[in-house]
Amino acid sequence: MELEHLRRQIEDWIRLHREDAVNLTQQLVQAPSLIGQEQKVQELIAANLREMDLDVDMWEPDGEQLAKHAYFCAQRTDFTGSPNVVGVWKTQALQPGGHSLILNGHIDVVPVGDVSQWDDDPFSGKVDGNRLYGRGSTDMKGGIASSLMAVRCLKELGVKLAGDVIVQSVMEEESGGAGTLATLLRGYRADAAVIPEPTNLKIFPKQQGSMWFRIRVKGLSAHGGTRYEGVSAIEKSQTILNGIWELERLRNERITEPLYRDTPIPIPINVGKVQGGNWPSSVPDEVVIEGRMGVAPDEKPEDARAELERQIADMAANDEWMKDNPPGVEWFGAVWLPGQMDSGHSLLAALQQSCQQVLEVEPIVEASPWGTDGGLLEKVGGIPTVVFGPGVTGVAHFPNEYVEIDKVLQTASVLALTMVSYCGVVDEGGTNRGAASYGVVCTDGLLSGVERDKLENQEGPSNFLRKNCI
Amino acid sequence: MELEHLRRQIEDWIRLHREDAVNLTQQLVQAPSLIGQEQKVQELIAANLREMDLDVDMWEPDGEQLAKHAYFCAQRTDFTGSPNVVGVWKTQALQPGGHSLILNGHIDVVPVGDVSQWDDDPFSGKVDGNRLYGRGSTDMKGGIASSLMAVRCLKELGVKLAGDVIVQSVMEEESGGAGTLATLLRGYRADAAVIPEPTNLKIFPKQQGSMWFRIRVKGLSAHGGTRYEGVSAIEKSQTILNGIWELERLRNERITEPLYRDTPIPIPINVGKVQGGNWPSSVPDEVVIEGRMGVAPDEKPEDARAELERQIADMAANDEWMKDNPPGVEWFGAVWLPGQMDSGHSLLAALQQSCQQVLEVEPIVEASPWGTDGGLLEKVGGIPTVVFGPGVTGVAHFPNEYVEIDKVLQTASVLALTMVSYCGVVDEGGTNRGAASYGVVCTDGLLSGVERDKLENQEGPSNFLRKNCI
Repeated sequence: MELEHLRRQIEDWIRLHREDAVNLTQQLVQAPSLIGQEQKVQELIAANLREMDLDVDMWEPDGEQLAKHAYFCAQRTDFTGSPNVVGVWKTQALQPGGHSLILNGHIDVVPVGDVSQWDDDPFSGKVDGNRLYGRGSTDMKGGIASSLMAVRCLKELGVKLAGDVIVQSVMEEESGGAGTLATLLRGYRADAAVIPEPTNLKIFPKQQGSMWFRIRVKGLSAHGGTRYEGVSAIEKSQTILNGIWELERLRNERITEPLYRDTPIPIPINVGKVQGGNWPSSVPDEVVIEGRMGVAPDEKPEDARAELERQIADMAANDEWMKDNPPGVEWFGAVWLPGQMDSGHSLLAALQQSCQQVLEVEPIVEASPWGTDGGLLEKVGGIPTVVFGPGVTGVAHFPNEYVEIDKVLQTASVLALTMVSYCGVVDEGGTNRGAASYGVVCTDGLLSGVERDKLENQEGPSNFLRKNCI
Repeated sequence: MELEHLRRQIEDWIRLHREDAVNLTQQLVQAPSLIGQEQKVQELIAANLREMDLDVDMWEPDGEQLAKHAYFCAQRTDFTGSPNVVGVWKTQALQPGGHSLILNGHIDVVPVGDVSQWDDDPFSGKVDGNRLYGRGSTDMKGGIASSLMAVRCLKELGVKLAGDVIVQSVMEEESGGAGTLATLLRGYRADAAVIPEPTNLKIFPKQQGSMWFRIRVKGLSAHGGTRYEGVSAIEKSQTILNGIWELERLRNERITEPLYRDTPIPIPINVGKVQGGNWPSSVPDEVVIEGRMGVAPDEKPEDARAELERQIADMAANDEWMKDNPPGVEWFGAVWLPGQMDSGHSLLAALQQSCQQVLEVEPIVEASPWGTDGGLLEKVGGIPTVVFGPGVTGVAHFPNEYVEIDKVLQTASVLALTMVSYCGVVDEGGTNRGAASYGVVCTDGLLSGVERDKLENQEGPSNFLRKNCI
């Protein structure tokens, strides 16, 4: 089995380069890339891509131009110091049967929050056993490291793909996707895309979208001792919160998508913040509720928006005070568009198979509980996108964020195998032989003598031979 | 009717000195006396008291000594630059049947809040028709001006009281009463006290106490897209809020005090502030609820405190999450002790009668919806206290606070008459003749020629004569 042979070579190469992968992830984490501070880390990535001999394009998107796009969503239009980086691994020409693939990842990280809740410096990149710590480690510098290692692996193994691979390190995903939008407006397209966001090695061919709402519930101020002379916005906000949860229930009852069958609440409406009043002895005259509304993979964001607005209006209409003082609903911050890849898409099949091979278990395929830049790739670029990567949602955006190094490596193997299967490979005669029939002979040209010794030392010679040369 | 005659003289004197009262109130408002900034306004008051020939005592309380007292409640123990002022109008010796009286008022004001919500500078002291605007105008510099004008009126009319009058301008009422506590520890006592807090000319012989609570409701953080992996502190806080309102209902059902018969919620529990979560897409792991609990005039604050704590504990015990993660309850900020004056107290009778005479309607007697320093005067000093003054609760602590000038003047008249009735007056032979039999002859010695001309010009000579000399 030639593919089986290649698989082993890929996995061995990745295992052999564990230290490189750790160093790379660490370097990425140690270059803080909060909004507006992406320059340094993007230069690192550009250098890495150049070393692999990819065509590197690094540019600061033109905010004025971007802002004209219907899906532009950002807090700023000046991206000076916040470049995108794209590296293209060009095939001589797309081979028959070959496919081009985008590996997209965002380099921006969310704020560290309360530093005192971190055990170490939030940008330490500290390694402790299988964990590498730091803001952005799981979301999603680990995934970017996986992509870079996967490409380097294939390059060093001498694999020639039958379609281009476009590695993208974009900014602004956390703030609405202006970085990915800019790659699309610059003309980057491919047959499909993978985003190694933290799925904990699950495959998400369908992605939930999301958007943020802010509801202002009004009251009437009064002294707390005569609170009956006022109207408590906190009391009124109870009604509104109950209405939100009721709507969440109704919306989720409608979901029939089988990929959500194991998800307790497929498209949650999360109330993330509530803030009202300013003095214990005063009746609060305003409560501001902020939250995140999930949008089903096949739903239009504007329909979801209208549904929440209608629900709030209905709650208000049935309340003596609120019917004359209706709460205001605004949509603010970022929007993550939903997205979905056809269940029969060949990238999905390739990814599933690669996962099965590397993880040695049936991969879990679900619909995502959150949005990514995949929605933009699909809606704006027409590029079917699947999300799969190392890291877990549970630590993203939180103190002591970490990524498991093993999973960064496993993702790199899966991505490398997926490129082989989906993009296809070219034999020495220049023909795309397809992945299934592609073979790599075990030679010193692929693994250097030193590397081979190292791996033998790690695993014992017989194990090494079994994996690499049989 | 000699008293009727004096009443007219008092009212005329007050009316004649409207401009002085306005200027005084304005000066007090224009000297901002936020916490720590009381020096300037206290010097003004001390000067005013000295002009009236009262014995003036101005001192910075010793915080270390105060802090040892069980009822000490303040955010600070250093009162440098925050003096109390007391002026004593001494009788030669307490006459038989005479009573001493404290006129207590606090000079500290609450913060101005959001300045943009004010139409003018918060310390403008601007006069528009019958209204005088500014932070502290209603709470309670208007009332202090009434006290000062009342004393000056009696002094200038040549009235000699049969008991001491002690005028107190204290700091720290808004923060827990350290100023009034300091007057008590310095030895100031009287048979009874009036506090001209903003009752809108109602009489409050019973005062509700109050204290502030803070409840921390815990949750478990998670990404909003997988909110079922966390526990929303906002959801849990709903249960706690419902428990608070249920307790308020139960506590108020128990109130039988007739002075509360027209009060919709005699002792409210006001939830003034709620704050939870910090990101729309995260499950909030804490909600902080702050509020004010009313304490019935005859209730012990510690009993009320225990009742709320028990209620929260009961709510928590019935909730799967909260029973293991119980909300924390703390008591913070100031405590205003409840207080009550016996319904047969002679000060109350004197005040009611004076009100009736000046306002020409039956005064409204109620229990107060808030606490004052009266609780301290009663609990620590054994001094029965009644609250009566100009201004309305509805504008206290709010932007565009104002006081009605007419009511400042009416309060001054009522206080002057009350002093006459309650303290008693001494005739030229040195005998306390009692208020009812006291007569003042209309002479130029009481109203100067210039003043008399002014009043005649304002009201026409016949009206003036009717009121002043018949």
